[in-house]
This record gives sequence, C-alpha cells and structure tokens, in this order.
Amino acid sequence: MNDPDIDARGRLVELSTEECLTLLDASAVGRVAWCTREGPVVVPVNYVRLEDAVWISTSAYSALSRQADGTTLALEIDEIDASVSSGWSVLVRGRAERHSGDQVPADLARPLAWPAGQHPVVVRIEVNELSGRRLLPR
Amino acid sequence: MNDPDIDARGRLVELSTEECLTLLDASAVGRVAWCTREGPVVVPVNYVRLEDAVWISTSAYSALSRQADGTTLALEIDEIDASVSSGWSVLVRGRAERHSGDQVPADLARPLAWPAGQHPVVVRIEVNELSGRRLLPR
Repeated sequence: MNDPDIDARGRLVELSTEECLTLLDASAVGRVAWCTREGPVVVPVNYVRLEDAVWISTSAYSALSRQADGTTLALEIDEIDASVSSGWSVLVRGRAERHSGDQVPADLARPLAWPAGQHPVVVRIEVNELSGRRLLPR
Repeated sequence: MNDPDIDARGRLVELSTEECLTLLDASAVGRVAWCTREGPVVVPVNYVRLEDAVWISTSAYSALSRQADGTTLALEIDEIDASVSSGWSVLVRGRAERHSGDQVPADLARPLAWPAGQHPVVVRIEVNELSGRRLLPR
C-alpha cells in the first residue's frame, strides 16, 4: 500500500505569514528573547498583538524594559505535542521600544502581566520579520 | 480571615539549582536561542542533559550547527498553566560546541531529533549558567 503522506512524516514545513498571524492572535503567552554580552536571554511573557507589533507589559526597571531601546528583540510562541512528536513554532523579530502613559495606543487592550506588581511600561516589538514552522507527526 | 499565602499570589520566586536540574531532566523539549546581527533566534529542539551539559542533535549544515563554534547559546524550558496564570521556566546558558562521531560520549543516550532526516551532529551546551523562576498562582 502506498500512503501518499508517508514522505511528509517528520517533515518541517514553513508556515505562511497568514498562518503565523493567526497563531500569534490565538495565543497570549510567548517567550521574549534578547542578546547580551553573556549570550541570549529567553523568558516567558504575556503579549498582545495589535496591527504590526506585539506588546508586552513590564515593570519600569526590568531587564526587558532596559533592552527596549531600539534594538532587535524576538518573541517566540510554540505548541508541542510530545505524544506524536510534532508541533509548531512562530518567531517574531523586530525593533523594540518602550512606551508608557499616553504613548500607549488607546485601542490597545493592554496586555495583562501575570506577575503581581506594577507594569506601567509597555514594550512594543515591531513585526519586522515573521516566520514559522510546523513539524508534521511521524 | 488572614490567608498566610495571600502575599505570595502572583509572586515570582527563584528556583534553586537543584530544582532547575530536576526540571531539566524531566523534560526533553526546549528552545535553543542564539544571537545574530539581525537579533535573537529561538527554535524548539529536543535535548538530553548529561552531567554538566545539554546535548542537541542536529543536521550537519543547520543554522544551529554553525552557531556552535564556542559562542554562548541558551536553552530555555518552561511550563505554563494559563488556567491559574502561573508557570515556571529554566534558562541554561553556556559555551556551545559541535561534536560528531567519536567525539560524542559513549554514555550519551543520543538525543532523538523529531524531524526526519540525518542528525549526525550533536551540539553540546555547557551549563555555565543555570537559573529558573516560578510564578505562583494568583
């Protein structure tokens, strides 16, 4: 028997921009990454997408807030299904800037931050690059 | 009624090195990150921890393989429970090197890579830095 999908098993396929945006909008937790002299830092965050950017609430003096000075940051989201050794991931990269007070767009449903405490700063990462991959089940 | 744990809700607590190692050993999928001129890259990978390093199988000409030339890479793992707005994450950072053939330790249960194809290279990330945090439920 020839299974037409047999060659697809375990294959990595690129996601379209539209698929990436749909997955971004369907999730609210990802991992923000930045580069330091001591290597990359990756930490889970809550986010919201609004138009051409993702927005992350943070405290005024967080490491993330300090990074958002025009350098390029990344946000990664994924979903892994270990039972069939498959999953997908989406990576956003772009210029990051700090916003607070009136600088935050009025129509932004301000991203909730799960940790307790004040989060008056919103980091905006422009979606300059968007890519994603799906690993088909074996 | 005074709830003694009321102040702990939504608090971020640091994990001990032992807790981080236990979580690393209990999982097999994380996200490897590296820095490029165009910003950080973060992609899901399978890994195995052996002693003072984490090991990731990859293809010979992958972007990850090219990165593993003595620079510092990161591996992040996490578990998020959206129903109670909590979770934990662990970050490993360290010097990364490519190994293949006889350079791979005999006692390494070679990490399986879910994607189809050949994965003759094993990237070793030394655990030079290990940190983790747990976000307590609100």
